[in-house]
Amino acid sequence: MDHAVIMAGGSGTRFWPESRNRRPKQFLKIAGEEAMIALTARRLLPLVPPERIHVVTLQEQIELAAEALAPLGVPRANLIAEPAARNTAAAIGLTALELRRKDPEAVFAVLPADHVITPVSAFRQRLEQALALAKRGHLVTFGIKPTHAATGYGYIELGAPLADDRAARGIASFKEKPDRATAERFLREGNFAWNSGMFVWRADVILAELELHSRELHDGLLALHRGGAALEAHGYRALPSLPIDIAVMEHSAKGCVLAVDFTWNDVGSWPALEELHDADAQGNRGVFPAGGELVAHEARGAIAFSSSAHVIALLGVDDIVVVHTPDATLVARKDRCEDVKKIVEALRARGRTDVL
Amino acid sequence: MDHAVIMAGGSGTRFWPESRNRRPKQFLKIAGEEAMIALTARRLLPLVPPERIHVVTLQEQIELAAEALAPLGVPRANLIAEPAARNTAAAIGLTALELRRKDPEAVFAVLPADHVITPVSAFRQRLEQALALAKRGHLVTFGIKPTHAATGYGYIELGAPLADDRAARGIASFKEKPDRATAERFLREGNFAWNSGMFVWRADVILAELELHSRELHDGLLALHRGGAALEAHGYRALPSLPIDIAVMEHSAKGCVLAVDFTWNDVGSWPALEELHDADAQGNRGVFPAGGELVAHEARGAIAFSSSAHVIALLGVDDIVVVHTPDATLVARKDRCEDVKKIVEALRARGRTDVL
Repeated sequence: MDHAVIMAGGSGTRFWPESRNRRPKQFLKIAGEEAMIALTARRLLPLVPPERIHVVTLQEQIELAAEALAPLGVPRANLIAEPAARNTAAAIGLTALELRRKDPEAVFAVLPADHVITPVSAFRQRLEQALALAKRGHLVTFGIKPTHAATGYGYIELGAPLADDRAARGIASFKEKPDRATAERFLREGNFAWNSGMFVWRADVILAELELHSRELHDGLLALHRGGAALEAHGYRALPSLPIDIAVMEHSAKGCVLAVDFTWNDVGSWPALEELHDADAQGNRGVFPAGGELVAHEARGAIAFSSSAHVIALLGVDDIVVVHTPDATLVARKDRCEDVKKIVEALRARGRTDVL
Repeated sequence: MDHAVIMAGGSGTRFWPESRNRRPKQFLKIAGEEAMIALTARRLLPLVPPERIHVVTLQEQIELAAEALAPLGVPRANLIAEPAARNTAAAIGLTALELRRKDPEAVFAVLPADHVITPVSAFRQRLEQALALAKRGHLVTFGIKPTHAATGYGYIELGAPLADDRAARGIASFKEKPDRATAERFLREGNFAWNSGMFVWRADVILAELELHSRELHDGLLALHRGGAALEAHGYRALPSLPIDIAVMEHSAKGCVLAVDFTWNDVGSWPALEELHDADAQGNRGVFPAGGELVAHEARGAIAFSSSAHVIALLGVDDIVVVHTPDATLVARKDRCEDVKKIVEALRARGRTDVL
């Protein structure tokens, strides 16, 4: 049976002050009126019904996930709790064990909770195609056609078309985040795709490949999983912390890339909201999931966000990001938002964990 | 006896969003940990004791004034309520009638509630000097030595030194707010002072001069005041609305100017806070009367204000004013703060009087 697993264990600081330690990006209403995790689940319907949508997230975020997904009918039993963050290989391995136990024939898509994909119809079409490939034993990864020489993504060098689906390509190599010149070469040469972090595979196949290429992790997970659904935290924390790319994909002979034609946005920092929300006539974007309001006088190119019914007023400022929360407000130059972590570090150094 | 009257009937929009229709500038904690009106009263102590400090303000602001001044011991009975805003001549005339009734020998200083003066010792010294001049029948106005060619103030052209106090000067003429070139000439010529809006006079003298030069206003006030302390609103609204400068000072032969040597700040808009608060090493000023905090990374020259315990974070922005309130936040370029009224107008046009 086809399943989907939403990876919701991420943390990060780049959406501070809206994101907090206890409320990371995937639970924010920055891409629409629902949390990103709910938008991710909604995108799967009706191709994957709610009872086959699973979520793997940190134990401490289970309640947030349950709250966000209850309106979509995702069963509470489908939420898999990680006792600690041990990177994607552990989370995926754990989920594969759980799915294989429930459904030995399980095929599942792995989808980060905090990406935005449009149009949904194109996504569903590629997902169906990937599920078909996965059923035949491939480890399918979605490759995004680069639109610019991004240095923030890993790249996949495309190999030869597959014999059983000539739209899919083998994997020639994985490339770490490149420098600018290398990224420009990748773009020019044309046979590179961004590694989207979205995968589709059979539970038994990914587990066999994990056993083959990351034996310690596989065996550790297996032992823990035999202990029951409530994983022993100490043991989980002792597992190797590896991304699935390194644990499996870079070594496996079964990997392939499905180049996709939908628009993909990993919503990396506040300026990503420009691609998700329309601007007004002055080029300003007010993003207010709960009815706030932007008023601007001789201000252009702003992104203003509040999840409360707050008024944000801009006067004579260009290309500014303003994020209001009840206890902290960020005002940043739009092209400096990658450095929000510097603010977070400064607050941590001052002991202001109450706002982190 | 010496009295002081704090003029607290002003309104305005230049400190939005901290100032609101129901909470104008004089009630804000922008110059220190107390409201400006309280700082103004405190400046008078012990030269004028609390029982001889009076306040004239709008009826609807009496509670705010009482709350701000109670800790200083200003009696509630010393708060004089205007039924409507009818400019300074009406407020001063009303107060003079009230003081003369209580104390036929009353001499009083008129002090706007929203100015900052330092050092206090110099202010008290000049006030004593002015009270002495006033007792001899002069209408004393404090003249501020111009520090730059300001176009936002009225000017007084200084006349000859007075015979009875050669430190005081007669008034040659009053000048409206000048254009830039005229202001520069005033500064160059040296015999002009800014009209501070602070005056000292005997109650009976200012009333006699009001009767002489603005008979209609004088007689209207007299009739209303005979009706008792709770003024008849309709009658008060029908009074001529005149500044005291035009109603009396420009016509009176009794005016004189006392050039003062203290630093005077009429706190006209947010950037005025730069003169009232020290900057940190990056040239940023966080003004937080209730324990908020500023955190800045590669940001310079900012003014950040919140009257709640809010964190304001600045990233890569220079010369920005950020004012946080629970329901509205302003982000402005520092040199554009005179246009805050444009924001207020836009909000009014949208019907957002809830945040005005």
